[in-house]
Formats: sequence, C-alpha cells, structure tokens
Amino acid sequence: MGLAFFPIGSLEQHGPHLPIGTDSFIAQSIASGLSKKFPNSFVVPTLPYSSSFEHIGFPGAISLRSTTIISVVQDVIHSLERMGIQKIVLVNGHGGNYLLGNIAQEMNVDKPYVFVTPNRHHWDRAYEKAELSISISRDMHAGEGETSILLHLIEEGIIPSSVKPDKYMDVDSPNRPLLQAIGMRPYTSTGAIGFPTRASSRKGKLLLQELINQISITVEEFLGDKH
Amino acid sequence: MGLAFFPIGSLEQHGPHLPIGTDSFIAQSIASGLSKKFPNSFVVPTLPYSSSFEHIGFPGAISLRSTTIISVVQDVIHSLERMGIQKIVLVNGHGGNYLLGNIAQEMNVDKPYVFVTPNRHHWDRAYEKAELSISISRDMHAGEGETSILLHLIEEGIIPSSVKPDKYMDVDSPNRPLLQAIGMRPYTSTGAIGFPTRASSRKGKLLLQELINQISITVEEFLGDKH
Amino acid sequence: MGLAFFPIGSLEQHGPHLPIGTDSFIAQSIASGLSKKFPNSFVVPTLPYSSSFEHIGFPGAISLRSTTIISVVQDVIHSLERMGIQKIVLVNGHGGNYLLGNIAQEMNVDKPYVFVTPNRHHWDRAYEKAELSISISRDMHAGEGETSILLHLIEEGIIPSSVKPDKYMDVDSPNRPLLQAIGMRPYTSTGAIGFPTRASSRKGKLLLQELINQISITVEEFLGDKH
Amino acid sequence: MGLAFFPIGSLEQHGPHLPIGTDSFIAQSIASGLSKKFPNSFVVPTLPYSSSFEHIGFPGAISLRSTTIISVVQDVIHSLERMGIQKIVLVNGHGGNYLLGNIAQEMNVDKPYVFVTPNRHHWDRAYEKAELSISISRDMHAGEGETSILLHLIEEGIIPSSVKPDKYMDVDSPNRPLLQAIGMRPYTSTGAIGFPTRASSRKGKLLLQELINQISITVEEFLGDKH
Amino acid sequence: MGLAFFPIGSLEQHGPHLPIGTDSFIAQSIASGLSKKFPNSFVVPTLPYSSSFEHIGFPGAISLRSTTIISVVQDVIHSLERMGIQKIVLVNGHGGNYLLGNIAQEMNVDKPYVFVTPNRHHWDRAYEKAELSISISRDMHAGEGETSILLHLIEEGIIPSSVKPDKYMDVDSPNRPLLQAIGMRPYTSTGAIGFPTRASSRKGKLLLQELINQISITVEEFLGDKH
Amino acid sequence: MGLAFFPIGSLEQHGPHLPIGTDSFIAQSIASGLSKKFPNSFVVPTLPYSSSFEHIGFPGAISLRSTTIISVVQDVIHSLERMGIQKIVLVNGHGGNYLLGNIAQEMNVDKPYVFVTPNRHHWDRAYEKAELSISISRDMHAGEGETSILLHLIEEGIIPSSVKPDKYMDVDSPNRPLLQAIGMRPYTSTGAIGFPTRASSRKGKLLLQELINQISITVEEFLGDKH
Repeated sequence: MGLAFFPIGSLEQHGPHLPIGTDSFIAQSIASGLSKKFPNSFVVPTLPYSSSFEHIGFPGAISLRSTTIISVVQDVIHSLERMGIQKIVLVNGHGGNYLLGNIAQEMNVDKPYVFVTPNRHHWDRAYEKAELSISISRDMHAGEGETSILLHLIEEGIIPSSVKPDKYMDVDSPNRPLLQAIGMRPYTSTGAIGFPTRASSRKGKLLLQELINQISITVEEFLGDKH
Repeated sequence: MGLAFFPIGSLEQHGPHLPIGTDSFIAQSIASGLSKKFPNSFVVPTLPYSSSFEHIGFPGAISLRSTTIISVVQDVIHSLERMGIQKIVLVNGHGGNYLLGNIAQEMNVDKPYVFVTPNRHHWDRAYEKAELSISISRDMHAGEGETSILLHLIEEGIIPSSVKPDKYMDVDSPNRPLLQAIGMRPYTSTGAIGFPTRASSRKGKLLLQELINQISITVEEFLGDKH
Repeated sequence: MGLAFFPIGSLEQHGPHLPIGTDSFIAQSIASGLSKKFPNSFVVPTLPYSSSFEHIGFPGAISLRSTTIISVVQDVIHSLERMGIQKIVLVNGHGGNYLLGNIAQEMNVDKPYVFVTPNRHHWDRAYEKAELSISISRDMHAGEGETSILLHLIEEGIIPSSVKPDKYMDVDSPNRPLLQAIGMRPYTSTGAIGFPTRASSRKGKLLLQELINQISITVEEFLGDKH
Repeated sequence: MGLAFFPIGSLEQHGPHLPIGTDSFIAQSIASGLSKKFPNSFVVPTLPYSSSFEHIGFPGAISLRSTTIISVVQDVIHSLERMGIQKIVLVNGHGGNYLLGNIAQEMNVDKPYVFVTPNRHHWDRAYEKAELSISISRDMHAGEGETSILLHLIEEGIIPSSVKPDKYMDVDSPNRPLLQAIGMRPYTSTGAIGFPTRASSRKGKLLLQELINQISITVEEFLGDKH
Repeated sequence: MGLAFFPIGSLEQHGPHLPIGTDSFIAQSIASGLSKKFPNSFVVPTLPYSSSFEHIGFPGAISLRSTTIISVVQDVIHSLERMGIQKIVLVNGHGGNYLLGNIAQEMNVDKPYVFVTPNRHHWDRAYEKAELSISISRDMHAGEGETSILLHLIEEGIIPSSVKPDKYMDVDSPNRPLLQAIGMRPYTSTGAIGFPTRASSRKGKLLLQELINQISITVEEFLGDKH
Repeated sequence: MGLAFFPIGSLEQHGPHLPIGTDSFIAQSIASGLSKKFPNSFVVPTLPYSSSFEHIGFPGAISLRSTTIISVVQDVIHSLERMGIQKIVLVNGHGGNYLLGNIAQEMNVDKPYVFVTPNRHHWDRAYEKAELSISISRDMHAGEGETSILLHLIEEGIIPSSVKPDKYMDVDSPNRPLLQAIGMRPYTSTGAIGFPTRASSRKGKLLLQELINQISITVEEFLGDKH
C-alpha cells in the first residue's frame, strides 16, 4: 500500500522578515520529515500557490480561485491513484486553505484515502511541546513559530539565508473578526501577526519535530484504519 | 446601504432525535434574529443543502459538491448586489462548510462586502453565556446545544414537533482526528456527538440569543468598516 | 423502489399582491400532495431560487445561472441515488426553468429515472377542471391561478397571511413575443400578467388538487415504466 | 446596428426517410430566408449538434451536454459582440433545445440583444397558413412539416436528394408524457412522430415562407425595441 | 470496429480573397477523402468555429474559448463512443488549434482511440509532393496551399465561387515570433501570410490528394495498433 | 513596467537516468537566466505538474487536465496583473503543453501581455549553437540536450546529484506518428527518446546559455512591442 505526502504551499507576504514562499517551505519540510518516518512513502512536489486573497493588501500574493484549487488537488490525487497509491496526506502549509477539508470529504465518499493535515490540535500540541511563548492563534502569521522554523531551515542549509533579523517587529492582534472580509492589512502594519522577535532556530527545530511527531500519530491511525 | 442575511443550512442526519434539516432551522433562526436587530436588513431564503459528505454513512444526507456551493453562493450574492445590497452576511448553520471562508475572501478582493458567521469565537462565547455544560468542540453534532435550540424552536411553534425525546443518547467522542477521511460513522453509533440528554428549551432560547448577540457585535463592526 | 419529489421554486416578484417566494410555495404544496398519494415517497427541501433573470426589471429576484442550476439539480439527484432512490420527480414551480427538461434528458440516457413536472398539459387540464376563467397562457404570472393557490395556502395556515387583496389589479398581456429578450417589465406595470381579481381560495384548493391529480397519473406511468 | 442570425441545428435520427441533419438544414434555411429580409444582417455557420439525448434509443445522435451548449452559444455571441453586432437571433431547428431560452434571458440582463426563435406561436401560425393537415404538436418529429421542408430544399437543390419516399410511414403518438424520461423509442417504432406521407414540396415551400414571415414580424419588433 | 472522421474547422479572415470558412472547407474535404479510403467509416459534421483569437485584429472571427473546445470535442467523441465507434480521427483544418493534442492525450489514457491529424509532417510531405513553391511555414495562412485547395473545390462545385482572384497579394512574413501575443495583424496587411498568386486548382487537387495519402498511412497504423 | 517569468514544469519519467522533475528544473533555469538579463523582472515559483498523459505507460507522472492547466495559468497571470505586472512570459519546460499557445492567445485579445516560450525556433537555434549532435526532434525526451543541461545544473550545485550515468542508453525513434494516441511506451523501452550518452555538462551550459540568448531576443521584441 503506497502512501504519498502532498504539500500545499502558498505565495504571500510574510512580513518584511520572511520570504513569500514561507508556507511552501514549511509544508515541504513537514512532508519530508513525515516521509522519513513512513517507509514506502514519498513526497509530491509542493503546490506553490493556493488561496491567499486575504493578503491582497500587501504585494507578492499569487492566489488560485477555490475552483482551481479543487481541480489541481483532484488531478494530483487522481494521478497518484493511477500509480497505485492508496493513501494520500495533504500537508497544508497555509492556514487559509479551509476548503481542503471539503475537497477531502468529497473524495472520501467511497473509500477513505485523502487526509488533510496538520489540524488545529497538531499545531497546538506542537507549540506547547516546543515551548513557544504563546498560542498559534495569537502567533498566526510570520510570528514566533514560522520564523523559528525558517531560521532552522536556513541553519540546515535547506533554504537560502533570506531572513533579515533587523526588520523583526512583533504585532499583537488577538482578535481579527473581520479577517475574511477585510483581509490582513487592517490588523497588522508589518504584514505579520505574532511575535517573531522571540524566534530561534532551536525552537524551530523543536516545533518542526513536534509537528511531525503529532501528525505521525494520526497518519498511523489513518493507515491502520479499516473503514 | 442595504444588508442581507443569507442562511446556509444543510440536510444530514442529526441522530435519531433531531430532524435532518436541523442546521437549516438554526441558520434561519439566527438570521431572523439578526435581521430584527438591523433595520434595512432582510433574510434571504435558506440554502437547504450544502457539504455533508461526512454523513454519508447514515441515511438522509443531500450533499452539494464544493464547486456547486461556490456557484450558488456567488450567484445569490451577485443577485443581491444587483438589487443594491452592499453588505451580505452568510449565516452558516453547518460547521462542515469550511469553504465559505474561501468564497468570502475571494469575493472581497476589491471591496469587503461578504462576511461569514458565526465563527468559532461566537459559538464559544454563546455556549459559555448560555451556561451549557460543555464546549461546542465536544458537543459537536446534535448535542446539548443544537437539541436545546430545536426544543426552543418547537416550543415557539417555529418548527413542528418532530423531536423524539425518548431516543436521546449522549455520545462523548472528544477526538475525531480522521473525521474528514472516514466520516462520522466510526465516531458515533447514534449519529450524534455530544450531550443531548442535557438539553432544554430554556438553554436553547439563551444560546440562540447569545449567538445573535455575539454575531451582532461583529456585524456592527462590519457595517462600520471603512476599508 | 424509493420515490422522491424534489420541488424547484424561485424567488422573484409576483406583483404587489403575492410574496416573492410564491413559486416555491406552490412547488412545495404540489410535491407534498403528490407524496401523500405515493407510499414510500418523500419530499426533498425546496430549492428556493432558480432562473429568474426575466424579472430583473423589478426588485426581489435572486437568480442562479443555468450552469449553477444544472450542478445543484445533478448533485441533489446523485445524493438521492446514493440513498437508493430510484425514481425522482422534479416538481417545478417556475415556468421559466426550461432547462430542467434538458437536465432530465441528459441524466436519463442510461436509465429513465428523472422526470420533470407539471408539464403544459397538466396545467391546462387543471385550469379547466378547476374552472378557472381563462387559460394559463394568459394568466401566466401571479394571476387567477397562482393567487388562488396562495389564498388557499393562507387559509390552510400553510403560509402566513401576506397577500394584500387591496393591491390586486388585472393585467391582460396575451402576446409577449420578446419576453426572453426584454423581460417582464415592458409587458406589465404591476409585475403580474393575468387576472388576480378573479382569484378565490376555493379555486385555489381545486386547482391544487387537480394539478396533483393530473401529475399523479403521469407519475404512475413513470413508476410502471419498464424501459 | 448589425444583426446576426445564428442557426442551431442538431444531429439525430429523423425516421428512416429524413437525414440526421434535418434540423440543421431547417434552421439554416430559416436563417437564410430571414437574412434576405433584413439588410445589414448575416448568417453565422450553423451549430450542427445540440441536445439530442432523447434520441439515444436510435443510432446517429451526437449530443452536447447542456453546459457545453451554454458555453458554445455564449462564445459565439461574445465573438459577434466584439465585431459590433448588436442584435443576435438564435434560429433553433431542434425543439428539444429548451435551455436556449435560459441562455438568452441570462445574457439579456443588462441589455436585450439575444432572441430565440421560432417560438411555439410562430410554428402554429405557419402550420395553419401553410394548410398542413394537423398541429405541430402531433406532427412533432420528421412528420408532414419537416418532411415537406426537406422535399422543398431537395427540389431547390439546396440539399442533396437523400429522402427515400418508399420508407414513409405515419406514426400518430399524440401523448408523450414521459418523453423526457424515456426518450422517443417507446413512442415510435420508426423514429418519426407525425404524418410524413402527407408531405409535399409545395407545402414545404409555403411552411418555410410562413415561418420566415412570422418570425420576421417579431424580429422587427426586436430591432425596434427601446428597452 | 467503426471509424469516424471529425473535421474541426474555424471561422476567421483568410485575406481578401478566401472565405472566412476556408479551414472548415479544407478539414471537411480531407475528412471526406479519408472516409472514401476506409470502409465502415463516416464523417461527422464539421465544427465550424474553434480557437481564432489571433485573428481578432480583422473582422469575421468567431472564437471558442479553450474550455469550450474541450467540452465540444469530448461530447462529440463520447456520443460516437456510445454508437460503438472505436477509433476517432480529428481532422483539424486550423493550425492554431494546438490544444487538440492535449485533448487527445487526455482521452487516450485508458485506451488509444482519439487521433489528431494532419500533423506537421503530413503537411510538409504533401507540400513537397504537390510541388508547391515554398514550405507551409512561410505559406502559413491563405497562401499558395490553401488558395489552391479552394480553387480546386470551387472547380469541383463543392463550394460556391467566392474567391476573388483580383485581390490576390503575396505577403512574405517568415518570422512571426510574437504571433501568439500580438496576433496576425502586425505581420500582414492583407490578413494572409504566403503566396496566393502562385495558386492553381491543379496544385490544390494534388495537395489535397497528397494530404489524404499521407494521413491515410498514419490512420492505417492507428487502426492496426495493438497498444 | 514590470515583467514576470512564469516557469511551467512537469512531473513525468525521463528515462532511468534523469529525475521526474527534469522539465521543471530546465524551465526554472531558463527563467532564472532570463530574469538576470531583464532588470525589474522576477521569477514566479514553477508550476511543477502539467499535461503528461502521454507518459502514463511509465510510473511517476502527475498530470493536470487541460481545463485545470487553463485555470491555474489564468489565476497566476491575473494575480500578477493585480500586482501591476504588465508583461508575462511563460517559460515552458514540457513540449507537450501545446495548449499554452491557446491560453496566451485567448488572454491577449484585448492587449498583448502573455507570451509563451521557448518556441521551436529557439530550441533549434540553441541546439545548433551549442553544437549538439542532432536535432531536438530526434533528441526529444531525456536525450543529449536535457541530459546535458541536467549535468550542468548538477555541476553548479543547483540540483542534487541524482543522475545515474551507468543507466544511459540511446534510443533513436525519429518517427512517432501516433504519440498522442498511444503515448511514449511503444516508441521507447527506456522512456527516453534521443542520445543521452552524448551528453556533457559543457554542452548543457552552452545549450542553456543559447536558449536564454535566443529567447531574450524575442522578449526584447515583446517588451518593445507597441501593438
């Protein structure tokens, strides 16, 4: 039984200090770590753009319409099926891709084979275990967590050194009730929401490990599932 | 400036004790309550089916594909725009309609005019204020909250008396990591997840009021928004 | 062998005297009456909007594009199929939904299981039998027939009393060659075409009964069909 | 102000005696006759296939899905608009293309510029004036009317002589309530419904002329329309 | 095993001397010639419009969007399949329909049954064998080749005499690197690219024959294919 | 005036010796080289999958349907437009993406701003100038050219060293008339068509440079274009 990890990234501003491809780097790193834990699994090339319309107030976003994302994800999954892959895990690097849940549910009607991850619980547990200073809800975008992971990836030479530490600035914006209506801009002057000044590559290493650990538990369940 | 509330319901099993149209009744009741608070607003007829593929293991679900939901919501909104309505609030009765967030963000690129509600915060606050015994996350489907609202609506004569109290049964299923992959069935024998035995029409009345109150605060902000 | 009745309504002006949801009320009432005649049948929640672009000259219309209607109808039918329903009757309350015929024909290529009703013959016979004063062709919209059915439904308490008898006005507009091009507006100042002043709840009761009777005959044939 | 006539044909069996392209020949002939009456007008090449799923029981049908027909008609109309054409008349040769009415209404929301013809009234009047023996409703397919027009077109050398008079056979099938569900096959052994034995090229010439005359009156109105 | 030839034409300017339907005439003539060589084959009615956006700078083009062309071609092919046809040859008269290759490849995933022709090699060989004065790359549009075939078809009475020899003019425009970006207009004042003054009906007869011969060889291979 | 290079890659087998992402690496390298020549330009993340249905006979292909590719390319281009980018160059690494030409032509109807490259001429000239041993037509897939570029990219450390030189094997398959119908498999046992044994990193460096040079000339024209 084959297993594929399909990372879904995004291209959107991540404050002045992180690259626009941050979500893609993170999705890919998680998928890569997961793949090492599961023999007979592999990682599909990352989809580098998805639903980023909420970042339109800042330069740099490339957004696919929801119908386009649905088509791409279905086509990739159908290609994997044709190769004989029986379980497919979408590794989503961009919180705003809510519709992935609907895509999975729709495809799973006849057999359970598509699974979206990480979920909120995975993130919460990983933040806790990696001892980050705050919850992901307040550290939502380009904050302590994402910046830490990027610092770690730079240290490992996995991505080139493009983080500029001198531009770090924390933005605390705990309530964002109109985010889906008015976008990020009104809630942050930098583009980030969270606490990047608290980031460190050590935290990033831990956070990434814990995300992979948490998700692995659910993937194990998914593989063992008999429904 | 006109304001419209557009309830999104669903048609899916709600345990042996609640009607399959429960989410539609709730969405419609919230929208109706909101409309009373906002002069110059009105309520659009409820969309009675949406994304319910996770309930396929039980009889009674009618599900629209994600692409269909996108088309319906866009067409209704465009018709409202043509009438001169400038702010549109989607009142979502079914937690599984994740993609509504994406639909809104995509339509709001040029101007903020579509808003999805209630969000998680609204539900959490309303559960607290109405003094329900547990969080909505554990009382997810046809539990204390939904059953209470339905009891209230029956008492008010708004919906006919179809709830059968002798079939109540609580199901505690706090962790459902594979829900999107394997559906509801493996997590509940009755179809419900939560605590319907604790329901009362008094709680339902309060919960509905608090939901309307919480959402109203955000709608006020949305109307006052100058972005 | 299960049988489902799926009412297709609309949301569009029906003159100053009838509610914009008139077609939905009528479709639902016919479907409900039909269901009582056929054991093992049930009624799906009414689709409350469809193709009403010809009413754009008046306020109140919500219109779905043709492609959207096709998707919704196909999805509902496929959900019913999945439940094991083998015959599906679309009960169309809005004359302008011509495309339902094409949707049915396309779905029936492999097996005959979708049927659109009432057809013109059903309406003509019912008008005759209920002794309405004129043909449905001249009493096309919010006229004697529709107003009578609404009066009947109000009398029965099925819909709330929103008809305002003091605003009745007959409009005779027998030829409307450009209706599809220029819409209703040029053919009627009130929005209605027909003779609402002649309406009565007694006629409405009869008309509804006769429609149900006429359609039942065809549904019997449909169920007995061996093709 | 330019005017274009866009013939919509079909490819489907027309009994043993008429070619499968009969509807296309008729649509094209009407369009061609109309164009001669209107200076500054022209005829677009005929769309040779449309919605013929009801003929699937016989060989020879090529059918486009409804969504495909919508796309083709919209694209052709948009191309004509780009050329500066301001009024477009769809000349429909195939009765089963109900959805053309919806396509027109949807495109006419902002300005009335698309018009579908002939309507039922045009056909009825033309049948009467050409003194055909029966109504078009009973002479629905490959009957006296269509066969007569084809005989006329053969006589004129417009189409090659492919009608085989020795295979004529009348089929009277006045009631076809389940046509959209079960197709043509159960209502006719030959594929035709109507009275081809009564056809003559003289009747065909008259019928075609009268159709063109009747439609011209409406097209005049359409051109003069100020809505 | 049935075989169908499906001609894909276009509607676009072909200089002042050739009709806008030139590509359709040529596709149809090739298909007709091919069909005579293969017993049990037949010719589907020509699709008279396709992808002609590059001719928008001149009057007369009707263009279908790529998604529309995909739908039409798929629907026609599926209708042919339903009739039992097992091999389908698209005979493309318009060089700009690049996407036909993708449509074929996508449909051939499970079994090889759709084939697009003529390819570049067929055209090159036919130009050589018919002793045309130049390569098709320089004689790209309404040039020596297409004009010759049209002259031949006129001589045969297959199409009416609409070529106006006094408007012939050669345009040599060998390099057109930006054609897909800026269209035909900047590369030709007449709309043609090539050498129509060198055309003759004799060359047209030969060219058509050679095209049919060349394509036949590949169709034979296609029919004999066991993959 | 901004300029963006958008590389279109693919994921498909490239013989036993090259990675399945070869086309993506090449598209990205060309785009990167082009961007260095044009100030104020940038490179969009590579689309890593496209139309690879012809490789289905071998493992490893992920294919997007044509309609999906159209949607993705349109969405990316529309996002770039929104950022103010006025010229967009698609850098296509996969020969089988014929439809990109149609996508560009369709989007260029109102203004010329989308351009697909490299074209056949660019490849031919670059092969010549880099002194490859044979034409690209015979060295079509994973041959001397692609292998050389990959060797060069490995040498530069741009991609990791995954080429396995001991598995090289030349396959000469100059005629592939049925490729679109039957796929690659019948024309090659290794998956490659061409002469990888003749590859060298020096040739790869030259070939890449010459491709960039050739394309630059056309991009200059495109930027200077006043149509």
